[in-house]
Amino acid sequence: MSPALLSSFATEIIIPVCAVIGIIFSLFQWVVVSRVKVTPDRNGPPSNNNKNGYDDYLIEEEEGVNDHNVVLKCAEIQNAISEGASSFLFTEYQYVGIFMVVFAVLIFLFLGSVEGFSTKSQQCTYDVSRMCKPALATALFSTIAFLLGAITSLISGYLGMKIATYANARTTLEARKGVGKAFVTAFRSGAVMGFLLAANGLLVLYIAINLFKIYYGDDWEGLFESITGYGLGGSSMALFGRVGGGIYTKAADVGADLVGKVERNIPEDDPRNPAVIADNVGDNVGDIAGMGSDLFGSYAESSCAALVVASISSFGIEHDFTAMCYPLLVSSIGILVCLITTLFATDFFEIKAVDEIQSTLKKQLIISTVLMTIGIAIVSFIALPTSFTIFNFGAQKVVHNWQLFLCVCVGLWAGLIIGFVTEYYTSNAYSPVQDVADSCRTGAATNVIFGLALGYKSVIIPIFAIAIAIFISFSFAAMYGIAVAALGMLSTIATGLAIDAYGPISDNAGGIAEMAGMSHRIRERTDALDAAGNTTAAIGKGFAIGSAALVSLALFGAFVSRAGIETVDVLTPKVFIGLIVGAMLPYWFSAMTMKSVGSAALKMVEEVRRQFNEIPGLMEGLAKPDYSTCVKISTDASLKEMIPPGALVMLTPLIVGTLFGVETLSGVLAGALVSGVQVAISASNTGGAWDNAKKYIEAGASEHARTLGPKGSEPHKAAVIGDTIGDPLKDTSGPSLNILIKLMAVESLVFAPFFAAHGGLLFKI
Amino acid sequence: MSPALLSSFATEIIIPVCAVIGIIFSLFQWVVVSRVKVTPDRNGPPSNNNKNGYDDYLIEEEEGVNDHNVVLKCAEIQNAISEGASSFLFTEYQYVGIFMVVFAVLIFLFLGSVEGFSTKSQQCTYDVSRMCKPALATALFSTIAFLLGAITSLISGYLGMKIATYANARTTLEARKGVGKAFVTAFRSGAVMGFLLAANGLLVLYIAINLFKIYYGDDWEGLFESITGYGLGGSSMALFGRVGGGIYTKAADVGADLVGKVERNIPEDDPRNPAVIADNVGDNVGDIAGMGSDLFGSYAESSCAALVVASISSFGIEHDFTAMCYPLLVSSIGILVCLITTLFATDFFEIKAVDEIQSTLKKQLIISTVLMTIGIAIVSFIALPTSFTIFNFGAQKVVHNWQLFLCVCVGLWAGLIIGFVTEYYTSNAYSPVQDVADSCRTGAATNVIFGLALGYKSVIIPIFAIAIAIFISFSFAAMYGIAVAALGMLSTIATGLAIDAYGPISDNAGGIAEMAGMSHRIRERTDALDAAGNTTAAIGKGFAIGSAALVSLALFGAFVSRAGIETVDVLTPKVFIGLIVGAMLPYWFSAMTMKSVGSAALKMVEEVRRQFNEIPGLMEGLAKPDYSTCVKISTDASLKEMIPPGALVMLTPLIVGTLFGVETLSGVLAGALVSGVQVAISASNTGGAWDNAKKYIEAGASEHARTLGPKGSEPHKAAVIGDTIGDPLKDTSGPSLNILIKLMAVESLVFAPFFAAHGGLLFKI
Repeated sequence: MSPALLSSFATEIIIPVCAVIGIIFSLFQWVVVSRVKVTPDRNGPPSNNNKNGYDDYLIEEEEGVNDHNVVLKCAEIQNAISEGASSFLFTEYQYVGIFMVVFAVLIFLFLGSVEGFSTKSQQCTYDVSRMCKPALATALFSTIAFLLGAITSLISGYLGMKIATYANARTTLEARKGVGKAFVTAFRSGAVMGFLLAANGLLVLYIAINLFKIYYGDDWEGLFESITGYGLGGSSMALFGRVGGGIYTKAADVGADLVGKVERNIPEDDPRNPAVIADNVGDNVGDIAGMGSDLFGSYAESSCAALVVASISSFGIEHDFTAMCYPLLVSSIGILVCLITTLFATDFFEIKAVDEIQSTLKKQLIISTVLMTIGIAIVSFIALPTSFTIFNFGAQKVVHNWQLFLCVCVGLWAGLIIGFVTEYYTSNAYSPVQDVADSCRTGAATNVIFGLALGYKSVIIPIFAIAIAIFISFSFAAMYGIAVAALGMLSTIATGLAIDAYGPISDNAGGIAEMAGMSHRIRERTDALDAAGNTTAAIGKGFAIGSAALVSLALFGAFVSRAGIETVDVLTPKVFIGLIVGAMLPYWFSAMTMKSVGSAALKMVEEVRRQFNEIPGLMEGLAKPDYSTCVKISTDASLKEMIPPGALVMLTPLIVGTLFGVETLSGVLAGALVSGVQVAISASNTGGAWDNAKKYIEAGASEHARTLGPKGSEPHKAAVIGDTIGDPLKDTSGPSLNILIKLMAVESLVFAPFFAAHGGLLFKI
Repeated sequence: MSPALLSSFATEIIIPVCAVIGIIFSLFQWVVVSRVKVTPDRNGPPSNNNKNGYDDYLIEEEEGVNDHNVVLKCAEIQNAISEGASSFLFTEYQYVGIFMVVFAVLIFLFLGSVEGFSTKSQQCTYDVSRMCKPALATALFSTIAFLLGAITSLISGYLGMKIATYANARTTLEARKGVGKAFVTAFRSGAVMGFLLAANGLLVLYIAINLFKIYYGDDWEGLFESITGYGLGGSSMALFGRVGGGIYTKAADVGADLVGKVERNIPEDDPRNPAVIADNVGDNVGDIAGMGSDLFGSYAESSCAALVVASISSFGIEHDFTAMCYPLLVSSIGILVCLITTLFATDFFEIKAVDEIQSTLKKQLIISTVLMTIGIAIVSFIALPTSFTIFNFGAQKVVHNWQLFLCVCVGLWAGLIIGFVTEYYTSNAYSPVQDVADSCRTGAATNVIFGLALGYKSVIIPIFAIAIAIFISFSFAAMYGIAVAALGMLSTIATGLAIDAYGPISDNAGGIAEMAGMSHRIRERTDALDAAGNTTAAIGKGFAIGSAALVSLALFGAFVSRAGIETVDVLTPKVFIGLIVGAMLPYWFSAMTMKSVGSAALKMVEEVRRQFNEIPGLMEGLAKPDYSTCVKISTDASLKEMIPPGALVMLTPLIVGTLFGVETLSGVLAGALVSGVQVAISASNTGGAWDNAKKYIEAGASEHARTLGPKGSEPHKAAVIGDTIGDPLKDTSGPSLNILIKLMAVESLVFAPFFAAHGGLLFKI
């Protein structure tokens, strides 16, 4: 086993430097975005005459850039959205804060009790010839790591929201100058969020490892066991962010649509609709803050899973720091790769027509994947010994560096395939969504039937991609292979988040244009951005789910190792009942979240109807609606309703592990994983397809689309119904499910020492 | 190990006698039903004055019994339905017949090749000290058993359809005399089918065992291995029956509703609607013939699973014929118990008001379960030795007869719990369906969201019931315990089928009443029967799915034993990829069937619209529509569309087993099982709930319901959309899924010798 080319010292430098580069790049993008002023320019309109740069075939030209009132109006709406989002997140974080403190205490007590709160050193779990730090230390440091993860996730979500609400009005204003400018503004803002999150997550994790190392010294087994708390913290926070935010945004969206579009026949985001501000706030707290927390959680968990497996493999046993940091090095290179990739969208090329948006975003995926493949190759060859051993359920398995390279690559490329398949099934440029749109001819029922069938069908290829990725990485490097495959899929997270955040920002931009009374053409531009955003949102969810599947499996494997289970045999009653009950959990969870959205939406509908009926002149645009009551309804509903599904996810591993033991818990994890992935993919693609089928009819860009439209036609009404049904599927229950499977796995891993020592009470009696 | 109390000779007598009693009882019910004449009585109306028997509080009184034209009209419609159904089934059976022959050849070739078509005796698989019959014999007898199972299933479906089309018009005519008479007619007809199927299945299996024994002699291992072909035949046939029938019925139903109810505003089953005959034919070929084949398949498979495990346990090794026939004895007693139970509905009590229907059907479930518990106790204590051993993955496990009694009981009672939970979630007497109906206030979108959430939620308790049943029976008696638990759930199959077949018969009766132009009040009576029928149909599906889960697990266990796998460890790459791909199959399958229904319905819509537009006077009732074109569309669509999903199910085990080997196939089976159960239960309950939410609004029986109605109101329109979406969910994809999981398991078991010998080609290279 020859040592790695990269010295430990170089590793210690490279990781933080890459993280800092990411943060600086993010700040640079911020500065560029902030050049768009949302205060009226007192010196008159900016002079754009010298450099217009658009060709004749552009659908747009500058318009309305002189209107100061519009700018003021935009600023006002932006403020309202930003304040609503901030106030919701603060309230949410208060609730979640209480939970985090309680859960931190729980972690400390459970893990501390493993050795009866003894402060004495103890035999190591895997290498029994050596002495490790006491279980109490692991309890304490796991708790600290948990809180660190939770706070980082919280900050990630909050910053994402801040950036998005900062960017939305700016995108609207740039849309006056053309679709290209608006696109760049929205995309840069997304990049701010993407890079900040990726770099931040890496940096905090890196600092935590170095600080923990001061205490743990050579006990890397204990060190990285504690670090898994970071993943748990990140994901717990993400759960509440996703569920709370998801309920918020969809209660508002569904409520607004049901009265506005269906009953009153006013356009989306019409300022007369009392729920419109709540709807726009929702995009930021759900799709942005929730998504940010979610992907940060996946990233933290896959890093932790890889690290914890590595710590009991030759890297850890031989204290090879560079090889140990391989997961972090992959992420570091990922930041640099994404940086270059971003320039392709913002600087190297310019978008000049609407139909280039989708392909530019798609190119982002391809470029980042190709570049990252090279990056991974470099890291794999300089940071890893040519051969080493990986812990594989009790045995050490010999692995070569090129095999690990392939493991990361297979994850990366599986992600790309999932992205493409998702695009195919949710973009209205292809036949599946067009078929769904066509089925609206015969009404809402066939639309729903076709949409559900589309979602089910869209599961097939992603599952094969995931299965192949699992098979290859599992065969090469056991659980470590899976963990780094997950990291591979997430290595381009900065780009992924950028194109993902771009969607809700464009959506908001459209909302602001409508509310500010800007011209129809500007709305058309933001709509075009938004349609591409729906697809990228679905792609982002595809990534999130695919990586969650791999991460969960890696964590599950680490849990099984830590809990000391030999095999997870399906054909034992304990495991099988776990498996079937685990497969049921995604349904239970979805039932809760869907019902929550439904109930909250009904309340919203009543309030919106009440305002239309009771506020004189509202419909005519003479009076202002009471936006804040609607914001309050969404806030209250989401805070109240996020608790039961949250409790289901957080308590299941604890209850099952404590009462039924680790075998049953293994079954639950496997069942929830294999069933949840399917429900999540189908739900988010069905929802995305319905949304874009509606947009397809509205845009009327083809002969076929025009036979279905225009807005207000019977097929369009049917499409709106589908879109509304899809809302909770694609933005609440679907994306929350990947947190369900990840979180249960990481929680089981963190509590594994406790379950191994005291679990399975019911069978012990 | 003391021997059983019951002698082998007594066993040889009891089983066929019980089967014959079942057949006689069935014929007796047929005679009673046939007393209702569908030819006009030339001597004037029958004199009912002497015995009316109805109290004052009855909502009904006799009406229209004198109208000869109505009787003639009913007979004519009945003929049309019966001819349509017969002609479809004949065509379907021709297609399926070709498939069966091809598949039979395949079975023979695959199994024959295990030992290279050698005609020499060989070492037994389990007891290697003994010699068994050659693999070629197993190949031949498995093929024969397969054909026997297929033919029995085919006959079961056909007879069911014949009985139902014989009974529908009679129920309509009896409805003129009162709801009680109509109920009894429909229920008796259901009983004809229930008893005929249960007894027929038992008798054929019993005769096959005895005939095969002539050749096999003491080689019970080979004997019962061949007998599993019976289960495979039954289920293969059921697959095509369910899928083909399901597509037929829902293409017609959805098509008829979309134009009739939604566009033309004419009532359901209006004779002016060209698709109305196809719709009524569909009920008979889908819900009756399909369901009959399905439950027969479950019954055959669970018997086969139990027998094959028993043959390598002490029963088989010691050639204890009575104990060996324990599964058949349980089914025999089941027939007697169901016979007594039926009398409670038809003779001991009489239905006098609409609200008694539901409770009478519910009582059937309770009475049969309670009586059966006693029956099982008797069989367990007289037919089993007090202790014996059961084969448990390589080891023999000691089991006591009271433990086996508990295994059967836990299955039986789990079935009852599933039945009650299904009733709770799909009957409009309880809050879940009422909530769904209430959500129609805000339109179709909230109706769909609430309905989907209801379906997801309805999974929870059944899964816990199944999990508990599995845990108990698995712990007590390994795979044999699971198999007999499945048999326990199916032991009251005659009653289950009776209340299940009752539904579509009532539905048809309503259709005939409408088409024959009978009064509104008669339609109300049949509607009340039908609403209860929706719930019983959902209950029947609940039973079918619950028992399928248990049966599949038992077959899966038998497969694992036969294939010589030690453990099915989730944490090996081969198994895990199987698990995740298996969990995806129900989605792939559902995507196909849903899309098929959608596409066929679109064609139907076009045809119905064309007829309304092109046939002058059709809307005014002056011209007759062209029913046969619609029948042809449904027929062609279902025959064409049933092939891809059928191929998916039939080919998956063959391809996976041959290319990837038995470990991956085990994963696929486990994944499909745990995921398919959830999809199936949620789909069929969601559909049932939507249907009854619509009926709740239409009936307007409560203050709340009246605020939502009447027919044609906005909430009612939203409810109709939900109902239409639910059609393919509850009658096509949902119920087909339980065949998917059973069939893949039994097919794997039948082909296990081949896979064990030659499987896993891809990994061997």
